[in-house]
Amino acid sequence: MRGVLLYAPGDVRVEDREVPAIVEPTDAILKVAAACVCGSDLWPYRGLEDVDGPAPMGHEYVGTVEEVGGAVHGVAVGDFVVGSFFASDNTCEICRAGYQTHCVRRQPGAATGAQSQYVRVPLADGTLVATPGQPGPELIPSLLAASDVLGTGWFGAVAAEVGPGKTVAVVGDGAVGLLGVLAAKQLGAERIIVFSRHADRQALAREFGATDVVAERGDEGVARIKELTGGLGAHSVIEAVGTQESMLQAIRSTRPGGHVGYVGVSHDVSLPGQELFFSGVHLHGGPAPVRRFLPELIRLIWEREIDPGRVFDLTLPLEQAAEAYRAMDERRAIKVLLTTD
Amino acid sequence: MRGVLLYAPGDVRVEDREVPAIVEPTDAILKVAAACVCGSDLWPYRGLEDVDGPAPMGHEYVGTVEEVGGAVHGVAVGDFVVGSFFASDNTCEICRAGYQTHCVRRQPGAATGAQSQYVRVPLADGTLVATPGQPGPELIPSLLAASDVLGTGWFGAVAAEVGPGKTVAVVGDGAVGLLGVLAAKQLGAERIIVFSRHADRQALAREFGATDVVAERGDEGVARIKELTGGLGAHSVIEAVGTQESMLQAIRSTRPGGHVGYVGVSHDVSLPGQELFFSGVHLHGGPAPVRRFLPELIRLIWEREIDPGRVFDLTLPLEQAAEAYRAMDERRAIKVLLTTD
Repeated sequence: MRGVLLYAPGDVRVEDREVPAIVEPTDAILKVAAACVCGSDLWPYRGLEDVDGPAPMGHEYVGTVEEVGGAVHGVAVGDFVVGSFFASDNTCEICRAGYQTHCVRRQPGAATGAQSQYVRVPLADGTLVATPGQPGPELIPSLLAASDVLGTGWFGAVAAEVGPGKTVAVVGDGAVGLLGVLAAKQLGAERIIVFSRHADRQALAREFGATDVVAERGDEGVARIKELTGGLGAHSVIEAVGTQESMLQAIRSTRPGGHVGYVGVSHDVSLPGQELFFSGVHLHGGPAPVRRFLPELIRLIWEREIDPGRVFDLTLPLEQAAEAYRAMDERRAIKVLLTTD
Repeated sequence: MRGVLLYAPGDVRVEDREVPAIVEPTDAILKVAAACVCGSDLWPYRGLEDVDGPAPMGHEYVGTVEEVGGAVHGVAVGDFVVGSFFASDNTCEICRAGYQTHCVRRQPGAATGAQSQYVRVPLADGTLVATPGQPGPELIPSLLAASDVLGTGWFGAVAAEVGPGKTVAVVGDGAVGLLGVLAAKQLGAERIIVFSRHADRQALAREFGATDVVAERGDEGVARIKELTGGLGAHSVIEAVGTQESMLQAIRSTRPGGHVGYVGVSHDVSLPGQELFFSGVHLHGGPAPVRRFLPELIRLIWEREIDPGRVFDLTLPLEQAAEAYRAMDERRAIKVLLTTD
């Protein structure tokens, strides 16, 4: 089969790889219908995270179950499934509390290598959710988004305690931030302010439910949020970048007693304790427990209530993965979908 | 009147000071019945915080209303009142959300100088709560505790989402940590583990409801918590110290999805973003909005359901304030009550 490998920063190749086989009785093998490039894939691509190349890439996937191990009972051969990016048993105490990304048997890198034609998914019963039937091709992008970016934006909104009557600010206009806007709208936010400087992303944010756009960043951006909220700050802020500047921008945009939901993978962030203490905000986030939200997200997509697949503004065949990475790195695309056949 | 002044680190003096007068129509003047020394007073006493001496000290107080400004209607001359350490209007949007320490009209240093015979309290209607009648002398220590350390320990427990069925760990065995134990018990915690190396504090913690004591600190302390919780960590951790070590100990003692309530005033703390991100914990805290809890705390004390005044293990006349600071600094006392007549 063909699969994407990152050899070194900037060096993406598509090569022949072994088709994965069942290893544990709890495994499933999927024929991948579509995969994509994640914002977090850009960290090693840009050399900001170590690469132990050649490294199989990709952790977002939808596809059809080809084979299951003897202990798999929740999904069957032929099912179309959406998976989460960490494998989890979905039965341990941590999973039952809704934190499947911290499952006591979690396998963080388990679905790594999803930018390929087949993928092995461990703990299939706890990781995969089948769709109600075979989806039409028009639903594939949205279901694929549910696998990570939608689930992550949704978790950011839930962690930020978004709800009716609240003013929400979103730091980051990548796919996760934009889908944080969509989640905030679905969860009943009254006002949704997105930080963005890119016309195409601003437009999509408004389609997803943003009511205001702020182009300023850092302290100037914070000042704008204060102006828009009677000097108090937003009730809920979704942080979808992961840098020092974005975290401080998120914390400072939040009113005392408000909530920051941070889902941008943290890179070189160090939070000043005293400022945090006197801010009075709630802070929660981390790798999103997408599995918690998948049944509801699949339902919303299946019933055409949401269309998160809109974040894919470029579709390329798997063979052109290198161009997919380049387009995202250069911000020519918000998110790239890779077709596998 | 007599009042405590800190001239420089280690240099506490009791001197004649002007009796305060009404400045704003929202002020009240109290005759202080009892005051005390706070753990946070030890930071400047130890030279770990700058002193702009001579500085009036003290922010915890109970007493009788002597005089009110023309705009005060919630308390009357003769009322016995408990106050919170930040003055707040208790009517703004932030106060109504329960964050009176972040009131848009807050006056953080307002009640400073409470270690004296009289004190001026701004925003009296929003800051003071009258007791149901004149308290007997046996209730004074507990009511005084409500003014800060009980309210702060209580907020730590609420911020840590303590509740029935939960395992709670408490970092810090000072008055706030011990009253965090009491709060956790009241809020229904199933198991309460306190970190402590001092026999007297361990004993009081057990009286307040602690079920387990852990003497180890840092990573060893975290390992003990993991052992006691099936490898998962506590559901709720109350942090009542404010150092880098105590914050990391609190975060690492908490299970993914669990809650850290941090109320130790933060000193030289810098939280590593990546560790926090992958911990999956909730973080909330800051200066406690004691005013939110005062009516309930006064009720519990008045009805003899709780006896937080037990944290005062030394009582001295105001004139011996220097010895009070020394006793707390040298850990000869958990908390010192100062009598004012």
